[in-house]
Amino acid sequence: MPLTARIEAAVDGALARATRARPPERLAAALHHAVKPGGARIRPTIAMSVAIACGDDRPDVSDAAATAIELIHCASLVHDDMPCFDDADIRRGKPTVHLAYDEPIALLTGDSLIVLGFDVLSQVDPADAVRGLALTAELARYTGMPHGICAGQGWESEAEIDLATYHRAKTGALFTAATRMGALAAGQEPDPWTDLGARIGEAFQVADDLLDVLQPSDVTGKPTGQDVAHDRPSAVTKYGVDGAIRRLEDILSGAIASIPACPGEAMLADMVRRTAKRLTPAHHRTPAE
Amino acid sequence: MPLTARIEAAVDGALARATRARPPERLAAALHHAVKPGGARIRPTIAMSVAIACGDDRPDVSDAAATAIELIHCASLVHDDMPCFDDADIRRGKPTVHLAYDEPIALLTGDSLIVLGFDVLSQVDPADAVRGLALTAELARYTGMPHGICAGQGWESEAEIDLATYHRAKTGALFTAATRMGALAAGQEPDPWTDLGARIGEAFQVADDLLDVLQPSDVTGKPTGQDVAHDRPSAVTKYGVDGAIRRLEDILSGAIASIPACPGEAMLADMVRRTAKRLTPAHHRTPAE
Repeated sequence: MPLTARIEAAVDGALARATRARPPERLAAALHHAVKPGGARIRPTIAMSVAIACGDDRPDVSDAAATAIELIHCASLVHDDMPCFDDADIRRGKPTVHLAYDEPIALLTGDSLIVLGFDVLSQVDPADAVRGLALTAELARYTGMPHGICAGQGWESEAEIDLATYHRAKTGALFTAATRMGALAAGQEPDPWTDLGARIGEAFQVADDLLDVLQPSDVTGKPTGQDVAHDRPSAVTKYGVDGAIRRLEDILSGAIASIPACPGEAMLADMVRRTAKRLTPAHHRTPAE
Repeated sequence: MPLTARIEAAVDGALARATRARPPERLAAALHHAVKPGGARIRPTIAMSVAIACGDDRPDVSDAAATAIELIHCASLVHDDMPCFDDADIRRGKPTVHLAYDEPIALLTGDSLIVLGFDVLSQVDPADAVRGLALTAELARYTGMPHGICAGQGWESEAEIDLATYHRAKTGALFTAATRMGALAAGQEPDPWTDLGARIGEAFQVADDLLDVLQPSDVTGKPTGQDVAHDRPSAVTKYGVDGAIRRLEDILSGAIASIPACPGEAMLADMVRRTAKRLTPAHHRTPAE
């Protein structure tokens, strides 16, 4: 099965699990709205690619790890879009959950998707319980406090903010979780995989800052110009557009160089290059890309 | 160590874990505000009591189970109090989190506490990974969709609502989780413990409906009259005050009768009686209580 189909099947399985057996229907529909159709599914693609590069000896565990990360990501989008944060109208080209439904349903959709992420990990075979529990610890670490994506959003409420700490938590955390959990799912030590995830996350943040300035919202499927509107720290305001693009290229080179020696090393380098191509604003791509 | 001190120490340990190593300070303070000082800690008391009745052979696992349930409960209070739900001003005699801080911080506090609940379970000794993962599955089942407390809140957005289904999910779920997870933490089968938790949960809901009508808010530490104000289904509107009190007594008798045979059976019956005394509105207590 191609990677994208495998990820989508795993995500669909989790959604079906959360909406089985006579659930409250509006909330069930809102979960579906928040998760399907997906965006680029970048985080689960990274997790699954690393798992495969590490041997993928327990495919169900790899599926669970990739799905859990994507569900947490979807949850964070729903909550971030709510009126008390970005007050966003569109996401992935559709109305945001609080507009398509209402604020209570959006709040519960995010909560339910967070729980579903952990639920999915808890369903691995008891023979793989040590891996399942280690994956649970990783997901919690990169989602919650003090250093996960919740902490990242929390930094926006602080009077003083360190740009690197903020980005590492808000955007980087789930990319680091993706590479580490991919390795763990395949029974490997996660530590050698931290750098790769952190660098892809850093690249993604710079790319997102660039998109926010360079692309119209009908291309990104979400409102742009949000960083300036919300007075948020951004790589573009810090380095300028050209400086930010150079920085993106440097980070991606570093990411490829950081890939640990493993059977799937070349495949992973290719995955990073494809991710880079997806991230770089179209009219700034060099012919080689 | 007395039970209450043991529970508080475990909860404090979890809070310290979530706020270590330079977290965003306002969010860290809000987590503390939401969890300390606690209410009656009824759910972790039930979980811990069942674990002790079942032998408590892994005290760290029992501590984790009890703490995880309490953290989820605290998270649900923070989110339920927000403007899009109850818009409540006071909780446990203090300003609610969104008033003491703001809405973004309240949203993140709930999210972070949900994650922390799962995080705590993930930290059990790898030798206890099978129990840890089973506890994770239970916590997810009774927190998320389709039948946990998120689903319970979700039912409030439905045009048609079955009172029993609604209460079972919204209030009963975490009590059922408490007895089942207490048993699991001590290595016992959870199924024989489902009825006890469900009945205590049902009693608690009826008691809460009574308090909402009978007690001034300076006694309960939260706004009263909310069921009528929000047109919510209630045992008092269905059975009347006297009928609801008779129902409460019947349910608690049933709860005691449902306790499985175990070394701690008498202690558990006593725990249920003490819980009952706490739940019954003071001027309706019979002298025997």
